[in-house]
Amino acid sequence: MAISIICTNKDPQPWVAALHDVDASLDIQVWPNEKQKSEIEFALCWKHPEGILQNYPNLRCISSMGAGIDHFLNDSFFPEHLPVVRLVDPLLAQSMFEYICTAVMFYFREFDLYQAQQRQACWYQQPPQSMAETTIGMMGLGQLGGYAAEKFSLMGFDVVGWSRSRKSLNGIQTFAGPQEFETFLSKTKVLICLLPLTPQTQGILNRDLFYNLPKGASIVNVARGEHLVEEDLIEALDADHLRGACLDVFREEPLPRKHPFWTHKKIVVTPHCSSITNPKSVAPQIVQNYQLMQNGKPLLNRVDILRGY
Amino acid sequence: MAISIICTNKDPQPWVAALHDVDASLDIQVWPNEKQKSEIEFALCWKHPEGILQNYPNLRCISSMGAGIDHFLNDSFFPEHLPVVRLVDPLLAQSMFEYICTAVMFYFREFDLYQAQQRQACWYQQPPQSMAETTIGMMGLGQLGGYAAEKFSLMGFDVVGWSRSRKSLNGIQTFAGPQEFETFLSKTKVLICLLPLTPQTQGILNRDLFYNLPKGASIVNVARGEHLVEEDLIEALDADHLRGACLDVFREEPLPRKHPFWTHKKIVVTPHCSSITNPKSVAPQIVQNYQLMQNGKPLLNRVDILRGY
Repeated sequence: MAISIICTNKDPQPWVAALHDVDASLDIQVWPNEKQKSEIEFALCWKHPEGILQNYPNLRCISSMGAGIDHFLNDSFFPEHLPVVRLVDPLLAQSMFEYICTAVMFYFREFDLYQAQQRQACWYQQPPQSMAETTIGMMGLGQLGGYAAEKFSLMGFDVVGWSRSRKSLNGIQTFAGPQEFETFLSKTKVLICLLPLTPQTQGILNRDLFYNLPKGASIVNVARGEHLVEEDLIEALDADHLRGACLDVFREEPLPRKHPFWTHKKIVVTPHCSSITNPKSVAPQIVQNYQLMQNGKPLLNRVDILRGY
Repeated sequence: MAISIICTNKDPQPWVAALHDVDASLDIQVWPNEKQKSEIEFALCWKHPEGILQNYPNLRCISSMGAGIDHFLNDSFFPEHLPVVRLVDPLLAQSMFEYICTAVMFYFREFDLYQAQQRQACWYQQPPQSMAETTIGMMGLGQLGGYAAEKFSLMGFDVVGWSRSRKSLNGIQTFAGPQEFETFLSKTKVLICLLPLTPQTQGILNRDLFYNLPKGASIVNVARGEHLVEEDLIEALDADHLRGACLDVFREEPLPRKHPFWTHKKIVVTPHCSSITNPKSVAPQIVQNYQLMQNGKPLLNRVDILRGY
C-alpha cells in the first residue's frame, strides 16, 4: 500500500516532504523509481506520460496535483474506471483571486492607459471610473470563479457571472447556458475566463464573443490557453474593439519566443503564475483522500473525468 | 452673503452645479467675476493667485477644494487669522485606496517583474509571495492613510504605519516620531507616502530613507512631489537597492516632457490621478460648513494652517 508521485514538469521532492509532514508513516514513492508498481494504490499525477497508468495493476485512485484535470484527457489509455480527484486548495482560490484582482485593478484604474501614455511622455487624466459602474463578468463559477466573484462583489465592483448550469452567489447576477450568454457579455467591462476546459469551452474566447462585449472591454484569461482563439484576440485588439488582455495561460507553454503576444502593446503576458499549488497547503487533503480510499468511504473533490470537471 | 469659487486650474462650473443641487437658494459666484467682493464671506479655493484673498474684506472662512491645503502655504499674503477647512470626502479616501491597491497588487503579484520579463520574451515564474508575509508600510495615518491601512489589513496584508504622533488602528502595528522611524522602515516591503507636506516632511523620501528599507522594497508616492528627492530615487533604483516606484505626484506638474522619470524602466508615472475630488460627493459638506459659519458654530474638518494639516 503506497502512494506514487507521477509528474513530469514539477519537482516531486517538496510534495514528498509535505506529505510526510502530515503523516511520517506514509509509504511515498516517486515515478519512475517505485520499488514495485503493484504496491501503488494511489497516484498523485501531473502531466504523466501517456499510457503509464496502465502499469499499476492495483491502482484505486488518481489525484491531480492541481485544480485542473484536463491534463488527464490527453491520455487515451487513461483508466476511466478509477475514481479521480482534484485538489481544492483554499489558498489556491485566494492566490487566483489575487492575480485576477491585480489585473482588474490595472484596467479599472487605467494603469494600462497610463503606461501607454508614459511611453509618449503624455500627461492626461483619464476620466475616473467607480467600482459600482465597473462590471466584472466571471465565466465559470466553480471553486475558483465563485470565490473570486464574491470577493469582487465585496470590494464594491458590479459582478455578473455565467456558467453552464445556473449558480446562486451572494450579490451577483448570474446567467446560465448558451441562451443567456450574449446578455451576460453585453454587460461585461472586464471579462475573466475561469471555465473548465471541455470540448464545449475550447475556443470560446473568439471573435463572436469579443464583439458581443461592449467596445473597450478587457479580457483576463487564467483558465487554459485552449479557451482562446489567438488570432481573433489580436484582431479585436488591433481593431480597437478590445482595450487589453492579460493572459496567464497559452496553447503552448512556455510561450514560444517568437510568439506575437510577447511584443503586443495591449497584451500583458505572465508565465502561468496565477495560482501555483503550494504542496504544504494541500498535503492534508491528499492524505485524507488516501485514508478515505483505504476505508472505502466517499472521496473528497471527486471529478467526472468524462464531463471534464 | 455669498460663496466665491476661486480656482486657477479647475473648471468651477461642476462645483457651482453640485452646490446648487444641494441648496438652490445659495448665492454662488465665481472669481474673478464676482458682483461685489464685499459680499463674499466664504471662499472655496484651489491654487488661488497669491495675495488675492486680501481683496475680500468680509471673508470669514476659506475652504480648500481638495484634501490638501499646502497650496495655501505658497501665498505669503494668506489671511492667517481666518478659519481654514479642507474637504474630507469618503469617496476620496476610497479612490485613493483603489489607486494604492492597484500599485500594491502590481508589486505584490510581481507584474513589474513580469512586464520586464515580457520585454525580453522571458518565461520564468517568480517565487510566489503571501499577503501575510508582505508588509505594507504606510507613512501618514490621517483620513486617507488610516483608511487605506485598515483596508489593506482586512485584505490580508501585514501593515505597519508611521506618523508624527502615535495613532491606534485596527490590526496595524503603529510607530511614531523620528525615534521609531528606522524600525518602521526596516519592516516595510512596499512603502506608501501619504504624509502631509510640511517643512519636516519635505524631502523625506531620500537616500537615507531608501537605504533603511530592505533591499527590493518598492515606493508609492501619492502625497506631494516635494516629499521626494528625485535624484536619490533614481540612484537607489539604478543601484538595484529599490525594486520600483509608482509616482502620482511630482515637483513640477505636468511632469516636464524631458524628465528622466518618463523613460525609467522601474518607474510608473501617473498624472496626479490617485484621487480626484468629485464635486457631487463633497458639495453637502461645503454647504454644511457655510451654514455652520453663518450660525457661528464649530466648523467641520478645520485645519491648522501654520502646522500644515
